[in-house]
Amino acid sequence: MKNTLSVLVRNQVGVVAQATEVFRQHNVNLNSISCAETEAFDVSRLMLTVEGQEHLFDAVKADLASKDFVLEVEDLSARDLVDRELALVKVAVTRETTTQVMQVCEVFRATVVGMGQETMTLEITGDMRKVDGFIRLLRPFGIRSLARTGSVALARGDD
Amino acid sequence: MKNTLSVLVRNQVGVVAQATEVFRQHNVNLNSISCAETEAFDVSRLMLTVEGQEHLFDAVKADLASKDFVLEVEDLSARDLVDRELALVKVAVTRETTTQVMQVCEVFRATVVGMGQETMTLEITGDMRKVDGFIRLLRPFGIRSLARTGSVALARGDD
Repeated sequence: MKNTLSVLVRNQVGVVAQATEVFRQHNVNLNSISCAETEAFDVSRLMLTVEGQEHLFDAVKADLASKDFVLEVEDLSARDLVDRELALVKVAVTRETTTQVMQVCEVFRATVVGMGQETMTLEITGDMRKVDGFIRLLRPFGIRSLARTGSVALARGDD
Repeated sequence: MKNTLSVLVRNQVGVVAQATEVFRQHNVNLNSISCAETEAFDVSRLMLTVEGQEHLFDAVKADLASKDFVLEVEDLSARDLVDRELALVKVAVTRETTTQVMQVCEVFRATVVGMGQETMTLEITGDMRKVDGFIRLLRPFGIRSLARTGSVALARGDD
């Protein structure tokens, strides 16, 4: 099971290093991480996903909450979420395979954002499972580069 | 000027902490960070953006490259890039403002991914400037929550 933690931190030098150090200390392997500014100028949101390892979660959360640069720790794992990530995929194409790659794009509502002599660069957004599925279908064509953002999530509804 | 570093790292416990610690040691403030798996099972890609601070870059890059968990450091700052980020924005709406918010979405090709009694949750993808512009236009309506992934980038063309 994928667990998602949302951590609001002060936007200052070293917070990502200090926050991820907490996970390292508890020997928790991060599946993905993303950090960017929020609506408040001096606050960043750190979004971390972890596969399993639930038994270590309470200790990690308590440890994070005790840091002076941490403003809020929210465990979104059990919540009803809107979660999304973005991936850019550069895939090899030939005259023969271009149509097939375009068909995969159409099914996944991915968009073509770049084209070279031998490659196409595609953009996809969706939950992790959708992005995984897209990548799996493209793999036989030859993936040259892949950059994924890691998921971000907000609780569904007004909360 | 925004600088982008792409760092391929071994997928093991603590790499994000150790990599971001290098930036902290050089007193470089990260603008955004994202880390997720790549096409290779045991390799993750760390994408870091930094506003200015170019004079510290060479030292940071050399330091990163010397770490045993780092496989490749690529400075994408001067390259022609496809760069994208994703943001989820929960914005307050009333019966009066819903149409205006929908119009902003249409202009920015954002999509509505959730709706509550008093809020709409919107998804937007684009480069940093586009996402910034979208958020700026929504701010007067009242942003309840905002989660941005931070940018990921791939070089344009076949490289």
